[in-house]
Amino acid sequence: MKQRGIFTKTRRDAPKDETSKSAQLLIRAGFVYKEMAGVYTMLPLGLRVLNKIENIIREEMNALGASELNMTALQDSETWKKTDRWDDEKVDNWFKTKLKNDTQLGLAFTHEDPITNLMREHINSYKDLPVYTYQFQTKFRNELRAKSGIMRGREFLMKDLYSFSLNKEQHDEFYEKAKQAYFNVFKRVGLGDLTHLTFASGGLFSKFSHEFQTLCDAGEDLIYIDEKTGLAVNKEVLTDEILADLKINRNDLVEKKAIEVGNIFTLGTRFSEPLELIVDNPDGQRTPVFMGSYGIGLGRVMGTVAEIFADEKGLNWPINIAPFDVHVLNLSVNDAECTKRAEEVYKLLNENGVETLLDDRDVSGGVKFADADLIGIPYKIVIGKNSLGLGADKVFYRRKGETTEDTEILLSDLIEKISNEKK
Amino acid sequence: MKQRGIFTKTRRDAPKDETSKSAQLLIRAGFVYKEMAGVYTMLPLGLRVLNKIENIIREEMNALGASELNMTALQDSETWKKTDRWDDEKVDNWFKTKLKNDTQLGLAFTHEDPITNLMREHINSYKDLPVYTYQFQTKFRNELRAKSGIMRGREFLMKDLYSFSLNKEQHDEFYEKAKQAYFNVFKRVGLGDLTHLTFASGGLFSKFSHEFQTLCDAGEDLIYIDEKTGLAVNKEVLTDEILADLKINRNDLVEKKAIEVGNIFTLGTRFSEPLELIVDNPDGQRTPVFMGSYGIGLGRVMGTVAEIFADEKGLNWPINIAPFDVHVLNLSVNDAECTKRAEEVYKLLNENGVETLLDDRDVSGGVKFADADLIGIPYKIVIGKNSLGLGADKVFYRRKGETTEDTEILLSDLIEKISNEKK
Repeated sequence: MKQRGIFTKTRRDAPKDETSKSAQLLIRAGFVYKEMAGVYTMLPLGLRVLNKIENIIREEMNALGASELNMTALQDSETWKKTDRWDDEKVDNWFKTKLKNDTQLGLAFTHEDPITNLMREHINSYKDLPVYTYQFQTKFRNELRAKSGIMRGREFLMKDLYSFSLNKEQHDEFYEKAKQAYFNVFKRVGLGDLTHLTFASGGLFSKFSHEFQTLCDAGEDLIYIDEKTGLAVNKEVLTDEILADLKINRNDLVEKKAIEVGNIFTLGTRFSEPLELIVDNPDGQRTPVFMGSYGIGLGRVMGTVAEIFADEKGLNWPINIAPFDVHVLNLSVNDAECTKRAEEVYKLLNENGVETLLDDRDVSGGVKFADADLIGIPYKIVIGKNSLGLGADKVFYRRKGETTEDTEILLSDLIEKISNEKK
Repeated sequence: MKQRGIFTKTRRDAPKDETSKSAQLLIRAGFVYKEMAGVYTMLPLGLRVLNKIENIIREEMNALGASELNMTALQDSETWKKTDRWDDEKVDNWFKTKLKNDTQLGLAFTHEDPITNLMREHINSYKDLPVYTYQFQTKFRNELRAKSGIMRGREFLMKDLYSFSLNKEQHDEFYEKAKQAYFNVFKRVGLGDLTHLTFASGGLFSKFSHEFQTLCDAGEDLIYIDEKTGLAVNKEVLTDEILADLKINRNDLVEKKAIEVGNIFTLGTRFSEPLELIVDNPDGQRTPVFMGSYGIGLGRVMGTVAEIFADEKGLNWPINIAPFDVHVLNLSVNDAECTKRAEEVYKLLNENGVETLLDDRDVSGGVKFADADLIGIPYKIVIGKNSLGLGADKVFYRRKGETTEDTEILLSDLIEKISNEKK
């Protein structure tokens, strides 16, 4: 894509009320636009990052054998009354609205209740189980305060997966696979090393639920890590009894700030009982379906990556979710030879599956370098009058704490290098 | 994909309150689930169709040089007050909600107002123009009645494109290109022959806007077609003056029922003036940006295709938007040889880019045939004990009014045929 075809401009300043570092940078670099606190439009660069995160998650969900659907935001109150989640005293973050005839509707903050209701049409017997289904869908949560940028939205895109099993054994088997799929996702988006499986309280049907917590100073959560094993617990389960159960010594624990980038829950029959999702089991008896739910907030993942990899110059995207792989900076758009070479490089990279942004704007080299650093595409190729005679192109590579400048590289080598990095 | 991996079952009956034929079939075949009137969940098969429509539109929008973004449903009232569209007396289909502090918010029924507001950060000079941007985003419209299934939703996915030009000349040039892109879209989804460019009233900045109306007995609109030219007018512009202007003879007009599958508007400065989207023109004067907006409802396109191509047996999808290209029916899942051949065919087709659904369920052949007819995938390959010795596979092809049964075909020929049809 050519930069003149993207309408966004970089900004010197973020909105005054934006306190989150990642949101400030994402706004300044033209990835997101703040409609109001906790409500962000995804601009073209931001949408590309979000789509890449989505596709990574989709691949991992499909590999689990789950099928994709897309549910609705508008929700009939009847379903939620049956599960006792309609009352604002019970659920404190509903956005509600109403039809012309004054019927109250909710805007879904999650979808356990309607998916259970829907499944009554499709699940009748143990032969129909297990079922796994997921969606990428916008959730609405009426947060009292929203000050963490895209990491805690009032409106945000979420991947939610639901599992329907005959019993706890069938459920547990899938739950372990889902745990592994989550590790795969966080590894692929670049958060693998910093993300800890964290034990949290489990509710009626399981001793624990599990959070995936990424270490980050801007995190709103505190977790306690056993640095030997990498396992962590959150505050609500930091008791002697549970630590003994997990064979963790309290003295080994280190308190860290973290961001919850995903969570998985054993729901048991919490929803299938009130909503009567009941099957015949192999013995001919009627039994409520055993459920699980598994969430990842995509904006939160994007914000966390932005927050963690940013440096004083701007954003730094890992190659798998970068809006583009290579940023070609044509320093002399009014010079025919430079422009010819820039177009050649742009064409060749795209033809070889390397997603490339070409800065074809008629602005100074200084502006181009500063914007490229702010936007944070992994590789930059700089084309100027003094690079044309080299027989190779100049590539800059900047990662946090690791800068390579002015390296000469053949395009064929760069194409191979990027292809290997993406694997 | 294997049919046992999709949780949906076909149904004998649709909900009693569902009067739309297309919605009845889409529900019975397991493409959509009705949450309430005008609010439909996309089940796996339906989502595949919707995604294919989305990708066709995306390709045509990108070919126009437009960049994709994604705006929010939640809307600050201030913007809409400036354009005088916040008051429920002025806009009668708002869904509104509120924050914890009682601030009223709207759920966007369209995005002209916020996109104009957003562009103030990115458009300052004639040098920044033109700008074209689009999104696929959920709209909320509080319809008094919603009885046309997914063809008139209260919550629905829309493609909305916005153009920002320096003046009417720059706008008109793009408007004509957008018109052509719309024809491309409707041709590619299978509605080309039935879709008429229809003149509608234009507002302050242009004599006409244009609707794309698809002939259909279930349509809510009446249009008047000049069958010689294929041009049409809607009721609001059916005057002698306008007919003379369009060089249409009233006696040549035929009244037909139709569905509005798309529309394009010249907005002029209707939004840029109140929201102060002003640029320096080349003469150094300040001038409001000249805008256009261009919509397509994806569910409406899907519903229209479903409605028009359905026959007494079920749905009939055109190959470009069918959930799968080929439906392989293994009639004897308990026979090792049949299952081996079914798996071979399934694998070979998928490896050659033919999207294939394999009916691997342990149900009777009659159920498989009836379900396959209801679901409406263009090609069916039937594998049973008496087809194994043939040296070729049996392919059924069913279109409305055109049925080919029991044709023997080599897979390599089928792969080539489908590849050609998709072009």
